[in-house]
Amino acid sequence: MNAVEESLRSAQGRAAAAGPMSVPTPPLAREPARGAASQPLSAGGRLLRKLLAMFGNPPVEIVLWDGERVAPVGVQPVATVRIADRGVLFALLRDPQVSFGDLYSEGRIDIEGDLVKLVAATYDASAQANGRRSALRALTRLLHRPRANTLGGSKDNIHHHYDIGNEFYSLWLGRTMAYTCAYYPTASATLDEAQTAKMDHVCRKLRLRPGETVVEAGFGWGALALHMARHYGVKVRAFNISREQVRFARERARAEGLDGQVEYVEDDYRNIAGRYDAFVSVGMLEHVGVENYRTLGGVARRSLGSNGRGLIHSIGRNYPASLHPWIERRIFPGACPPSLSQMMQLFEPWDLSILDVENLRLHYAKTLTHWLELYEASIERVRAMFDERFVRMWRLYLAGSVAAFATGTLQLFQVVFAPRDYHDIPLTRAYLYPS
Amino acid sequence: MNAVEESLRSAQGRAAAAGPMSVPTPPLAREPARGAASQPLSAGGRLLRKLLAMFGNPPVEIVLWDGERVAPVGVQPVATVRIADRGVLFALLRDPQVSFGDLYSEGRIDIEGDLVKLVAATYDASAQANGRRSALRALTRLLHRPRANTLGGSKDNIHHHYDIGNEFYSLWLGRTMAYTCAYYPTASATLDEAQTAKMDHVCRKLRLRPGETVVEAGFGWGALALHMARHYGVKVRAFNISREQVRFARERARAEGLDGQVEYVEDDYRNIAGRYDAFVSVGMLEHVGVENYRTLGGVARRSLGSNGRGLIHSIGRNYPASLHPWIERRIFPGACPPSLSQMMQLFEPWDLSILDVENLRLHYAKTLTHWLELYEASIERVRAMFDERFVRMWRLYLAGSVAAFATGTLQLFQVVFAPRDYHDIPLTRAYLYPS
Repeated sequence: MNAVEESLRSAQGRAAAAGPMSVPTPPLAREPARGAASQPLSAGGRLLRKLLAMFGNPPVEIVLWDGERVAPVGVQPVATVRIADRGVLFALLRDPQVSFGDLYSEGRIDIEGDLVKLVAATYDASAQANGRRSALRALTRLLHRPRANTLGGSKDNIHHHYDIGNEFYSLWLGRTMAYTCAYYPTASATLDEAQTAKMDHVCRKLRLRPGETVVEAGFGWGALALHMARHYGVKVRAFNISREQVRFARERARAEGLDGQVEYVEDDYRNIAGRYDAFVSVGMLEHVGVENYRTLGGVARRSLGSNGRGLIHSIGRNYPASLHPWIERRIFPGACPPSLSQMMQLFEPWDLSILDVENLRLHYAKTLTHWLELYEASIERVRAMFDERFVRMWRLYLAGSVAAFATGTLQLFQVVFAPRDYHDIPLTRAYLYPS
Repeated sequence: MNAVEESLRSAQGRAAAAGPMSVPTPPLAREPARGAASQPLSAGGRLLRKLLAMFGNPPVEIVLWDGERVAPVGVQPVATVRIADRGVLFALLRDPQVSFGDLYSEGRIDIEGDLVKLVAATYDASAQANGRRSALRALTRLLHRPRANTLGGSKDNIHHHYDIGNEFYSLWLGRTMAYTCAYYPTASATLDEAQTAKMDHVCRKLRLRPGETVVEAGFGWGALALHMARHYGVKVRAFNISREQVRFARERARAEGLDGQVEYVEDDYRNIAGRYDAFVSVGMLEHVGVENYRTLGGVARRSLGSNGRGLIHSIGRNYPASLHPWIERRIFPGACPPSLSQMMQLFEPWDLSILDVENLRLHYAKTLTHWLELYEASIERVRAMFDERFVRMWRLYLAGSVAAFATGTLQLFQVVFAPRDYHDIPLTRAYLYPS
């Protein structure tokens, strides 16, 4: 069993155990499937068949409000999508990607079977059938434009996602509160172990030495800055525009007695000043917007002397494409995971050398599987904090993200860079792998 | 002493030992330097000062035919450039980059001191003063257009460089005849050890298993294909359009009893057909031309099933720029080292995932230092094979290349990639570093 199968199976096991992800089938709906067999489809069924074709005919069965079944041709379905009313059909036809998520959140679409597998099968079918030049992508570009990341826009966008409550995130992010891809040195590592290993992996890549200074662009709830200060003896100045996260991180630094070594600044990365030995940004680039990469690269360049090193860790793509429009609209406004050619707009204008790129996408599938498990285990508390719509929306986001990383629809790049005249490069990368 | 200093010093030591790189100063030229001091410069001196400014005022002293000295302001020169006649001045002003190499080859420019240090100082000064938006680059683009790499053009371009004689290359490439960046697991590894380690590093990155099939695009004198067959038990079909190299490699395979496992095909990479477990290309991309990357990527994609892995090893740049025009014209017609954003034109149109990028530029500075040493040690044989002009031309090319990689003017990228749906990715890269 490889890492993808493992992610998919383990997510499935957890979903089945947690219950709410699979919905029991009403007995009256158990009619024979039409379409694949002799019985002709209704007008609605034919439209759905066309919609499925747009997504490359994933092995998915659809059951309509009146019990009519649209079955995949010649293959076993991985899951069944139940449609509650005729209105769903029209909404899906108008804007399938955003509507699916919204209707699922509202309970007007339900899934019988495994949500991760359903989304993964759809991603795989779309990619195989359409590649990067599909009508679907054209439609997405036409319908959706990510929100802008001006100084004000960024603040709104970040507030939307990160300021919905530290308590909510603490339910399922684990002890570190790191909300980025972890790094599993072994397949059996726990989430907390893997998050700690990720921080060490980043610090080793940056070759931090005691007494050095680090600037961090986007610090989440502050875990990496504290880890660098405690275990690598560096001074950190870290920037973030999420008020809730800044408040949380400052308390944490005080509680851990590290507020003399770590300064959390509530400000935009564009306002970073000063010279440092290392520049690090883990999980912020997704929110920066390609149009600002040159600026961010300039900030990194001016922060580093010729002995400086940098690391950017970001969700990415195999080729330029916008984020799934439902995720962009409901979960991460303004977000866009770049392809490597786009990411290079950060480095190339400033003569920065790329020293190392590592793709950790299967680590993110594992991380998200762990988050989804903890999320499902806390589902009653989430429901009490918000409502059923929110519960379903975040389940779809987390399960869909497992699927995206497991199928290679999304990538996770760690890029190490340095100014052109940085020469202190070890001959091999063996120092990253102490035995 | 870091790796760059080491490269520079070791190249300098060898040049001093080998003799012909430094030219003794005629006693009558030992006049006090003008320009920096009180004595005003002649019209020629003033023009040279302007020329030096275009290159960022490198710490270089120039001595004219009449003994006039143009000294760098406020710094010790790393080397002295002697100009034999007034015609040199006009040639340099017309097209400084190409003329410098040609005039050095002809002996009308000579260098007192270390050639590697001279070129390195010029690269560093240019980069610091001008960055990527210099008048010099604009001039280069205006004056020089690399030769095209159509099917016929590629053949001519490759013939120009690689078919000048296997015997010549065997003088200084070492036992493996690998004409690409080696990989030094330790600073004290020999050239042959480092070339073998490079082949193992590539094979490990590709995770070759016995019985698998590999297609190689551009095979040089065939070393990697033989190494893969002998040590990893794979079958290799390898493509190259250099007739001399194909002949040499076929004889080698027969002599080593590996002609049943390795097939050397005299054909263009564009004509590769069939399905393989791995696609590999080491040191060919520099000759492909950015306009053909999409095509090459398509060849790689159709060669690999969803379990296939690929590796491309190429000289690169921190940002798009053409090869030094003298190198492109006299040494490598049609060649262009890409930036990573350019290299992505190979992968992004085909939904290929980048799994790993490693920058080995300091390894190439070491490799070239070893080549230069062997070249200087064989200088009498080279002179007998060709002439003094050739001897000097290739010395400048090798010494200038040490300088380019040592200063970060050129990079060396190894890129590992796979189709989107390749999932058999190890959790860590520790398998590349067996202890």
